[in-house]
Amino acid sequence: MRWADAFIAADWGTTNRRAYLLDGDGNCVDEFEDDKGILSVGKDGFGKDGFGKDGFGKAVGQIRERLGDKPLLLAGMVGSNRGWIEAPYVPCPAGLDDLTAALVWPEEGRTAIVPGVSLVDPDEADVMRGEEVQLLGAFAAGLVSPDALVCHPGTHNKWARLLGGKIARFMTVMTGELFNLLKGHSILSDLLSRPVEPDEAFAHGVRHALANDCLTAELFKIRARVLLGQANAEDASSYGSGLLIGTDVRTGLREGSDSEIVVMGRPELTRLYAEALRIAGRQPREVDGERAFLAGARKIVELIDERS
Amino acid sequence: MRWADAFIAADWGTTNRRAYLLDGDGNCVDEFEDDKGILSVGKDGFGKDGFGKDGFGKAVGQIRERLGDKPLLLAGMVGSNRGWIEAPYVPCPAGLDDLTAALVWPEEGRTAIVPGVSLVDPDEADVMRGEEVQLLGAFAAGLVSPDALVCHPGTHNKWARLLGGKIARFMTVMTGELFNLLKGHSILSDLLSRPVEPDEAFAHGVRHALANDCLTAELFKIRARVLLGQANAEDASSYGSGLLIGTDVRTGLREGSDSEIVVMGRPELTRLYAEALRIAGRQPREVDGERAFLAGARKIVELIDERS
Repeated sequence: MRWADAFIAADWGTTNRRAYLLDGDGNCVDEFEDDKGILSVGKDGFGKDGFGKDGFGKAVGQIRERLGDKPLLLAGMVGSNRGWIEAPYVPCPAGLDDLTAALVWPEEGRTAIVPGVSLVDPDEADVMRGEEVQLLGAFAAGLVSPDALVCHPGTHNKWARLLGGKIARFMTVMTGELFNLLKGHSILSDLLSRPVEPDEAFAHGVRHALANDCLTAELFKIRARVLLGQANAEDASSYGSGLLIGTDVRTGLREGSDSEIVVMGRPELTRLYAEALRIAGRQPREVDGERAFLAGARKIVELIDERS
Repeated sequence: MRWADAFIAADWGTTNRRAYLLDGDGNCVDEFEDDKGILSVGKDGFGKDGFGKDGFGKAVGQIRERLGDKPLLLAGMVGSNRGWIEAPYVPCPAGLDDLTAALVWPEEGRTAIVPGVSLVDPDEADVMRGEEVQLLGAFAAGLVSPDALVCHPGTHNKWARLLGGKIARFMTVMTGELFNLLKGHSILSDLLSRPVEPDEAFAHGVRHALANDCLTAELFKIRARVLLGQANAEDASSYGSGLLIGTDVRTGLREGSDSEIVVMGRPELTRLYAEALRIAGRQPREVDGERAFLAGARKIVELIDERS
């Protein structure tokens, strides 16, 4: 049986998982998302849902009950040391063929876990797990050029430099997590509770961050400006997000400013990063992350078929 | 009755308060600290301790029960909009005479609240409340020169530039709060749980931060380095603190690099900042914050006596 005839691809993260059934043409014909992230699955004990000793085996069975008894390609934190079986990182430069060669097989020929990618050299160290399928899938589907600079916003934003269609190097910026920490637990909590919009307050924050490198000082001023009547409390959330994303963009653009820039991921985040990049004088393209993920999964499955 | 003959000075913060009884020579002869910060006192309702409708009045009575029925000078968040009575900020440049002229009197002639200090100009906005007594007290006591650059670490680190013995300008950096957020709630929580020491890992973090302006990217690498075997988990806390404090020092030294630098506050924090400043090539002096606070309170009280 060829995998490419019909298979399931799942992006299995820390708190959520999303699974897709793809037909022989690579089209998604069924899908579901739920909150059974890896932390809700008991590895050798008792998950929230009582999966018991073989938590991941049963959690995988559940996916097949929903989408059919098909070959299953798993990506994301399910391959981490907190997941099902650890799939060691593939070092840069990494392409889809490298990922395929390093798949880990919990069920031989039937269920595979995609490894993450690492960057290791004397001065750098970084890891990704989950984004690699999207990044390389976007190239496989012709959505990005082989040497693009790709920005992938999320809890941990990734700036990835492709060279010849492989991930040559990348950098993680903790922007999303920092914003959530500040919103959830800091002295700025009240001020950051409103929805973020790519409005003039956001642009102000971006411009300020592009021109200054003192984020940790600028954060407190969000509160000071409101206390002193220099800014409206209603603008604080967009301004603060602009500061953080502007800092992120300033950092990321050091990866190279002469190539195509693509922002890929969930539209509610990519529109903010795309706006910040435009303020920085760039012309980014936005690519839907789900489409790229499906293209990457499909290409890996074709490579599995070629090798078997 | 002259205040300076005997009075109580209290540093009343958000979560704690510390009160001192000073004799006619300005020596502390009795003191106590407890967890009755302003958030535990019900302003117009019900504090944790059942102070009732006049929460702060009763909480102040408690101070006098402990230390005697003396005039009382209150500093810190007790004068904020979440405290007893709001004492409006005094704009820079601010000296002890300016603070004394702007005292707010909940009980005329008997209980005074010291205002905070604000920095307002078209490009800057910042506030402090509590640190001003220490900063100006250190000058009044001859502990710092009239034009010193003073670093005051805490949840919100302050870099204050004195000119002619007044606070000319200042900047708040959220270093302490950010470290606590990352330690308490982030993907780095486990790694940041060990005590921070000014060791080689700390110095490594400081040097890296002094040479690079990408803190939000470096934070994630704390985890990546450990995952990839480039760093020991045991060093992560000191290294991470070094990154944050090094970033803080890089930012603060822009306030001027040609003057005396003093680090003032709690010794467990001042020793870290002093070490980071030495790595940056400076020769900071450490000043005990409590001693400076008492000197500042004493000087304000002398000014009260002169005015009455």
